[in-house]
This record gives sequence, structure tokens and C-alpha cells, in this order.
Amino acid sequence: MKRIEDFKSIIDRYDVIFFDAFGVLKTHSGLVPGIERTFAYLTAQNKEYYIVTNDASRSPAKLAQSYHDNGLWAVSPERIISSGMLTKEYLDLKVNDGIVAYLGTTESAHYLESTGIHTMPVRDIDASNIDKVNALVFMDDEGFDWFSDLNKTVNLLRKRTIPAIVANTDKTYPISQTDLGIAVGGLAGMIENIVGKKFIQFGKPDSQMFMFAYDIIRDYRPISKKQIVMVGDTLQTDILGGNKFGLDTVLVLTGNTRAEDAENRITATGIVPTYICASAVLGPEALGL
Amino acid sequence: MKRIEDFKSIIDRYDVIFFDAFGVLKTHSGLVPGIERTFAYLTAQNKEYYIVTNDASRSPAKLAQSYHDNGLWAVSPERIISSGMLTKEYLDLKVNDGIVAYLGTTESAHYLESTGIHTMPVRDIDASNIDKVNALVFMDDEGFDWFSDLNKTVNLLRKRTIPAIVANTDKTYPISQTDLGIAVGGLAGMIENIVGKKFIQFGKPDSQMFMFAYDIIRDYRPISKKQIVMVGDTLQTDILGGNKFGLDTVLVLTGNTRAEDAENRITATGIVPTYICASAVLGPEALGL
Amino acid sequence: MKRIEDFKSIIDRYDVIFFDAFGVLKTHSGLVPGIERTFAYLTAQNKEYYIVTNDASRSPAKLAQSYHDNGLWAVSPERIISSGMLTKEYLDLKVNDGIVAYLGTTESAHYLESTGIHTMPVRDIDASNIDKVNALVFMDDEGFDWFSDLNKTVNLLRKRTIPAIVANTDKTYPISQTDLGIAVGGLAGMIENIVGKKFIQFGKPDSQMFMFAYDIIRDYRPISKKQIVMVGDTLQTDILGGNKFGLDTVLVLTGNTRAEDAENRITATGIVPTYICASAVLGPEALGL
Amino acid sequence: MKRIEDFKSIIDRYDVIFFDAFGVLKTHSGLVPGIERTFAYLTAQNKEYYIVTNDASRSPAKLAQSYHDNGLWAVSPERIISSGMLTKEYLDLKVNDGIVAYLGTTESAHYLESTGIHTMPVRDIDASNIDKVNALVFMDDEGFDWFSDLNKTVNLLRKRTIPAIVANTDKTYPISQTDLGIAVGGLAGMIENIVGKKFIQFGKPDSQMFMFAYDIIRDYRPISKKQIVMVGDTLQTDILGGNKFGLDTVLVLTGNTRAEDAENRITATGIVPTYICASAVLGPEALGL
Repeated sequence: MKRIEDFKSIIDRYDVIFFDAFGVLKTHSGLVPGIERTFAYLTAQNKEYYIVTNDASRSPAKLAQSYHDNGLWAVSPERIISSGMLTKEYLDLKVNDGIVAYLGTTESAHYLESTGIHTMPVRDIDASNIDKVNALVFMDDEGFDWFSDLNKTVNLLRKRTIPAIVANTDKTYPISQTDLGIAVGGLAGMIENIVGKKFIQFGKPDSQMFMFAYDIIRDYRPISKKQIVMVGDTLQTDILGGNKFGLDTVLVLTGNTRAEDAENRITATGIVPTYICASAVLGPEALGL
Repeated sequence: MKRIEDFKSIIDRYDVIFFDAFGVLKTHSGLVPGIERTFAYLTAQNKEYYIVTNDASRSPAKLAQSYHDNGLWAVSPERIISSGMLTKEYLDLKVNDGIVAYLGTTESAHYLESTGIHTMPVRDIDASNIDKVNALVFMDDEGFDWFSDLNKTVNLLRKRTIPAIVANTDKTYPISQTDLGIAVGGLAGMIENIVGKKFIQFGKPDSQMFMFAYDIIRDYRPISKKQIVMVGDTLQTDILGGNKFGLDTVLVLTGNTRAEDAENRITATGIVPTYICASAVLGPEALGL
Repeated sequence: MKRIEDFKSIIDRYDVIFFDAFGVLKTHSGLVPGIERTFAYLTAQNKEYYIVTNDASRSPAKLAQSYHDNGLWAVSPERIISSGMLTKEYLDLKVNDGIVAYLGTTESAHYLESTGIHTMPVRDIDASNIDKVNALVFMDDEGFDWFSDLNKTVNLLRKRTIPAIVANTDKTYPISQTDLGIAVGGLAGMIENIVGKKFIQFGKPDSQMFMFAYDIIRDYRPISKKQIVMVGDTLQTDILGGNKFGLDTVLVLTGNTRAEDAENRITATGIVPTYICASAVLGPEALGL
Repeated sequence: MKRIEDFKSIIDRYDVIFFDAFGVLKTHSGLVPGIERTFAYLTAQNKEYYIVTNDASRSPAKLAQSYHDNGLWAVSPERIISSGMLTKEYLDLKVNDGIVAYLGTTESAHYLESTGIHTMPVRDIDASNIDKVNALVFMDDEGFDWFSDLNKTVNLLRKRTIPAIVANTDKTYPISQTDLGIAVGGLAGMIENIVGKKFIQFGKPDSQMFMFAYDIIRDYRPISKKQIVMVGDTLQTDILGGNKFGLDTVLVLTGNTRAEDAENRITATGIVPTYICASAVLGPEALGL
């Protein structure tokens, strides 16, 4: 583990950079100031980059739009690898017909629809259609009534022996400077515990996220894991997952891990990043400005 | 472990009988038919009995009322030991002033009120009063908005270092022949997991429930654990807890454990009741009818 | 939570003091210097005291002897409440005949023997006697071969549906200034996880420990929980357990919890002692010296 | 989920077959009788196959040798994908110098040696070399003294902030018709729980196993996940992992899952194989004999 002052020196060392989104590129109050310079430099240097994010609330196109709306044009849809995309791949490969019941917004389900499967919110499942339900997906914490639909979900899973897929394993997400919201991964964990079944979980630290990104790169160029670095703010997801997949990793201090806690948390968890760096932002001088 | 045909022979062997409520005395559709004969026999034989129940939704008086409404007058308030009563004792002993925030119905909170502490639903906690909150209690799964109040609870516990008390550790409860509801213990488990703190949990199988009942008896008569038997329908709460406290135990098959599964579940869990008996109901002949 | 400079002011406030042993009265290198003054003061003030300790390696008599050998005569056998004593009570109440197989030293088993049950080390269980084994107890991490006897224990529990009792739930214990040893509770946790059964666990933070001590006091004098304080060095056992039982609690900083970490750990765990005090030692002036 | 009588019809449907080893190809008493016909048919049909196994005790060469010794020549080293190989890849990518401490036999370590890193059994770590230890690997349950070396491992991980890698996550393995042995994954789970750190775990159901095999195939031919089927005897590893990776799966009943339990366990766990088939063995008629 090395402390590095200058994120530029990290970029210079690798050919491909994987970025976590929340806490690295943006926070609850918008883009991390100056992050556009990092992408300008990446482009100038012909480096590849991907956003590897636990998010199933929207399609990559919609996720990219939110960066564009803030003026960061470098994050295009094909640069985004989300845990929602793994859910979609799973359904494409493993569920051939029938209904996929979901917890989440219509927008999160719309995105799955494109697989040709019929999606239906849990609230609309009843005796007339329950036998056609072939999978259940936890997409988002919004878009449904927690009391009635979480109770319905418990009973759906007791009546039907079907795969339950968690499209984002995060338990919480930041909603303001001080407050967290319970994420769909937190709700799914409660239901999994209650019904005693084993759910299929997508999202960092699971390797399948990194593999998905890695495969996309290999489709158009040769690459080795040694040439890739994962940049994240969370030891338990970004750094643990990146390490396990065999990548070098950078812990930045603009999100979940505060500068004053970093070493203590590394010691306590045993999750060791290759580098620690204050942020993923480059100074203007990096661009010769 | 012995299979016993006749619940009467069990009563005859002990001086005090502890009954679980749900699945033993009543089900979602009312009292277990004939259970009034068991209490008639207990009374005729001068045996003591207590209902030892994971329930914090109402006071013992209200719980007893629900039996009276169904014609079972033998279950008087002083015969009921609920996990809610342990919560009340905890607050009486350990919380001296300020606000006790709660998740549950007003009825469940009213019951705590009698301790002289000011209770307040989580939805009413805000910047003006959060510093006065000295405890949080999970009383019932009803009486609040799950989305807004569970999220609020997470942030309350991140801002205040206070005890969080779970007044009923059950994760689910039956709401019909086929369906379960998520109980407050299930919700509390999710929050405990999210905030990473250690909650104070009341309810079987924890020994404190049995001790509370045992103490009440000892206030008016000498008793040894050998003279008490615990009757329940659930291995993980009634039987495990009774065994650990040192009591003999009877598994009845009118609730959570079905006759055809009983032996398999005993083998799988390693939780062994002293006896298995079809139900806690006596035939009319037991009363000489 | 209040920081208190002077342990004497705590003693003065209560009628009965419960002490944890390790980290409070002694450490790996012997008695905490000056602790004899605390007991001299307790005696002078006619205060009651008990040592409430997760230890099943020896009988109370042998445990007391180890204090006497170090010159602390105040700790007599009848002042010691150990998790081993709860195991013994369990066996007395619940196991009537046959063999109790054990993992631990002969000394730890000898102590159970007095219940009239036949104890036998796991290594001596074979096809000729396995059908007579009616309970398994985890007493100590020493006295057996870990490889052969832990493997044997797994298979014993797969073949016999019997209660498995963990006589000390601690996962580790200190063996030097820097090193820990794996305690029998750590080994039992592994076996419980592997066989998927539910073990009966004795030891703080479980209330049954406190209840056992409380009952002993009530045999000879009236007492309320308000008059008792629990003194310990470990949040997860001494303080959580004491709080839950309804006692006031004191965290001392002579053992597992270091002064510089105390507040952080209280915040992180949500386990809040009534007081924090540097140690349970009184200065000479407390005795008028 | 479909019950299929004839394993041949499964082979005919896919281009690549992944087999679990234990419980599918062999049992504690040797090869599953007739399994050589399955490989003869695969060869005749020009189908690809891989053995995907949680095993880190030996190199692929040694594992293959054990099949050859039993007359099954079709299982050559390059057909074997073991969790040990992922450990080796991890060390190659992430640990550049120093000592890799290990628990296991010399044979299991010898295999890692080839990466150019210096391996050393935990028993030989002492004050003179502990600062050079840059990783710890759990390879096998044999080859070390459980008492002294597991205790040493706990203290090594408390003193050094280094990655701990579990090369086989299985908790047990069969050692006879009736008995299990504790596997290195069971021991590692205990240590992880005790030290409170996060270990890097390799082995099914983790996707990285399947990805490793998938990558090897893609090096020499185009393939889609739809063309591959995973055959295993264990729901929690083979079937869950195969499903999650997006493969079709076959549960065979020659190992951990007995025919009479299969449906119950599928319902209880919610892990649903694409097919259930009595075994992976073909009848002589499949080969036209």
C-alpha cells in the first residue's frame, strides 16, 4: 500500500481505468469538482475507462444522461457497466418465458423489458398470474409500497420455487451530506433471511461485475489484468472486488472512506488497496493549463 | 424424546405449565378448538399456567381481552408474560428521562408510557427533539410508514448513540392459512445489519423471558425448574429456549411444525423436545364428561 | 454515559458489584496491581461482590485457588459464577443418564462428573458407546487433539441427535501481551456452522449468567437490579449483557478496550456503559492509608 | 426444472460440459462405475469437457494422475480447473515479493512455488521473518498441526495487514460412506470470524471459477454461455454458481444430494437446476455396445 499524491501518475501507469461512480466521480451534491479534467487527460492520452457501478435503477443510457446533464460528456452509455446489466444478461440466458416480477420503478423494469420477457410489478401479482412468475428481481428501493409489496414478496417466494435476483447488493446509498437511504440490497437481504432461500446477487465485490467489463474490452483489443486499475471509495466493494479479480486498486478519499479513518479501516478489514490517493481529480497543470 | 398421545399425562407430571400462544392456544382463525378443556382441567387440578409469548403489540390486558372475546376466560392478564413486558422492565430500569422513540402502533407505545417515559413515534423525531431521544424501541410492524420511518430509523441510529430495543424477535407471523407477515423482529434485523450496531433483543428463545415468568411464580410459592414444562409449536423459540433454561419441553403439532416434518426438523436442528404431542387439547373424557 | 475518575464513587453507589475476571481483576501477567484494595474496601463497607466469568476450564474452587495463589483471598469459590456452572446446572436438569462426551481437559470434565453423569472425552467415543452419548459439551480448548477430535465431533453430531452445549462462548482469550489463543467458543462456532445445528450457548452476554448470580443473592437477601452494577472490560459481553439484564454497567480500560478506542467502539457498536472508569483499582487513600 | 432419464440427451444438447469431480465422477471409494463411458462418448462426439473442482490440495497434474491411476485417461491436467489455480493466478498478479505463508501440505505449496514466490508453512514464521510475509493462503486441512498453527495464524493476521486467501471454500469433504472431514474452508471461516477481517475466497459457487474455465475455452474457439452445461451434485456450489454465471445446470444424485431429498432441498433453498438426472453415467448402449 502506497500513498500517492498525484492521480496522474496512476493513470500513466495503466492502460485501462475502472471507476466507481458514487464517491469517486459524483456525490449527492453533483459531480466531484474538476473530475472533467481527469477524463480530458484520459482522452488526450488515449486511455480506456469504464464506470463500474452497483446501480440497477436505470439503463446505462439514462445513467450516462445524468453525467451529460452535469456537463461530463465523456461518460457515454457504452462506458458504463452496471449491476443492472448483469441482471439483464442473467434473464436473457436463464429465463425463457413467463413473468419476471420486480420491486422497483417502471424505469428500472423497462430496461429489463428489452430482453423480451414480460415484467410485472410485485403489486400486480395475484392468484391469476402467480403460476407464470418465473423469476423475481430486486431492482430499486423506490416505485413500490414497502409494507404491502415486501410482504407480498415474502409470500410469492414461499409459493413459487423461482430464482430471486438482487440487481444491486448495496445495503445503503447516500441521500445527503449526513443521511443514508436503505438500498434495495438491504431490503433483499431481509427477505432472503426471512424466507431462508439463496438469492442470486449481482454487484461489486462480486467478480462477475469486473469480468463483464473485462470481456467488453477483450472484444476489441488484447488486454491483461496487469494493465487495469480499479478506482473506488469503498473498501468492501471496489477494493475487495478489484483485488480479488486480480487488478491493482486505488482507494480515493472523496466518498465512503474518510482520510482520517483510511488506515484504521484497512487494518481492521484486511482489505488493502495498491494505492491510496486523495481523489481521482487532476490539477489543471496535468492538462498543461 | 418421547411421543405422547395424551396431553393430560403431561399436565399430571408438572406443577406449572408454560404455553406459547400462537400455534398452541390459537391460530390465525381463532382459538384451537377444545383448548378451553385444557384450562378447565388445569383449574380443576390446581395447576399453575402462564402464556409466554413473543408479542409487544399490546399490553397483557389487551392480549387477555382477545382470549376473553373468544370465550376463554382462563387467560387473565396476570397469566401473560410477553416480550413487551421485558421491554417495559428494561426502560424502567435503564432509561431515566428523555424521549423513547418507537416503531409501532400508538397502542403498543401507550403500554410503555405507563413507565413515565415520554414515548414518540419515529415519524415525529426531528432536529428539534433528536437530542432528547435516549432509546429506540421496535414494538410492532404496524402503525407507521415503512419507507419513510425505516429510513428515518437508520439515520436516527447513526446520529445518536443510544440503545435500540427489539421488543419481539420473531421475524414473521402467520396472517392466514397460507401467508406470513414480516414481523417487527424481521425489520429490526435489517436495520441492525445496516447500521452495524448491536441491538437488545427480547423474546424466546432468550432465557430472560423464562426467567421473568419463573420470578413471578417464586414471588408466591417455592418452585424448581423440574416442576415446570414449556409447551410450544416452534423448535427455534419455544423448545430451544425452554431447554436452555432447564425446563422440560413439549412440541405440539398445531402450529409451525407439521406432524410429517417434526422428526426431520428435530434431526436437522438438533433441538430436541422432551415430548412430542399432537396438541395441547384434552378430550372431553379428561374432564369426566 | 459518564466518565468517572474514581472507582470508589461507583462502589459507594451500589450494594452489589459484579466483576468480570480477565481484564478487570487480572491479566495474562497476573493480578491487576492494587486490586486487593478494592476488595478490602468492599469488605470494609459490607458490600457484596461476585466474579461473573466466561470460564469452564475449572471448577469455582480451582478458579478461586488461582486468586489465592496470587494473594487475593477475597475471591472465594462461592463468590465465583462461571459459565461452566450453568453447563453443570443444565446437565443436572436435563440429562438423566448415559454418557456426556466432552472436549476439554480432564479437570474441566471432573467438575461435571459431580452431577452423577458419566463423562467421556470425545476421543474415547466409538461404535461401542456412541449410542449412549446423550449430550456433548465444549469445555476447554486444551486437553484434546484438535485435528482428530474436532473431526470426530462433527461426525458424532451427524450421527446422534443430542444437545451440544458450549460452556464458554468466548472466541478468544489473551495468552500474552500481544497474542490471543482460540477459545473453545471459537471452535464450537466452527462446528455449529458446519453441522448446521443449533447449540446451547452459556456465557455473557447471555442473561442466564446474570440471572444465576442474581438468584444466589436473592436466596439470602432482598435485592433489586437497581442495586447491582456490572464491571467489565468488554463491550460485547460484560456491558451488553449487564445492560440487557437491567443493570448499570461500568467499562474499565484495563483489558480489551483501550482508553483511546473506547468512545469510538461505543459509537460503532451502540453498546453504551453507564460509566467509563480507568480501572477497578482504588487508590490507597480510599482505605485511609 | 425437468427430470431427465438419460444423461446422453444432455450431452447431445451442449457443446461443452463442465463436471464437478467429487460426487459426480468419483466418490470416497473410487470412480463412479461406468463414468469412463461418458468420456468415451464425449470424445466420440467431439465435445469439450472440463472438471471444475474446489480443490487446492494438489496441482492439476497430480489431480489428473489420480484419475489415470484409476484407469480414466480422459481427465488430463489441462481439463482440470481447480480453485487452487485461481489462488495461483491471484498470487501471480497481486503478490510480487516476500513470503507467502501457508496452511497445507508441502505438495499444495509446491504448486504455488512455481509462481516464483517464496512459500513457507505457518509453523516456520517467527519474529525473524514475519515482516516479509505478504500473503497467507489456506490450501489444505492436512500438513500442519491444527492447535499450534491455527493459533499462530490468528496472531499472524493480527500483526500483519495482508491478504488472506482461501483456496477452497468447501467446509467439509466426505472421507467415508458415513463420515465427513473438516475442509480447509471450514477452518478459514473460523479464523475469518475470529480476526474480523475479510478473506479472499476462491471456489464454486463464486463466478470466478466458471470464468476461468470459460476464458480457457475462448482462447481457442468461440463459445457462448448457452452452449455450456454445468453438472454437479451440490446445490449450494455447482448449481448456484453455474446458474449465476448464466449456464444451464444438471443436478446428479450420485453425491451430496440424495434422490429422495432433491425436490425438498430445491424448494427449501430456491436453487433450481435446469435438469435433474440420476447420474452422469451413460449406459453401454450409448456407445453402441
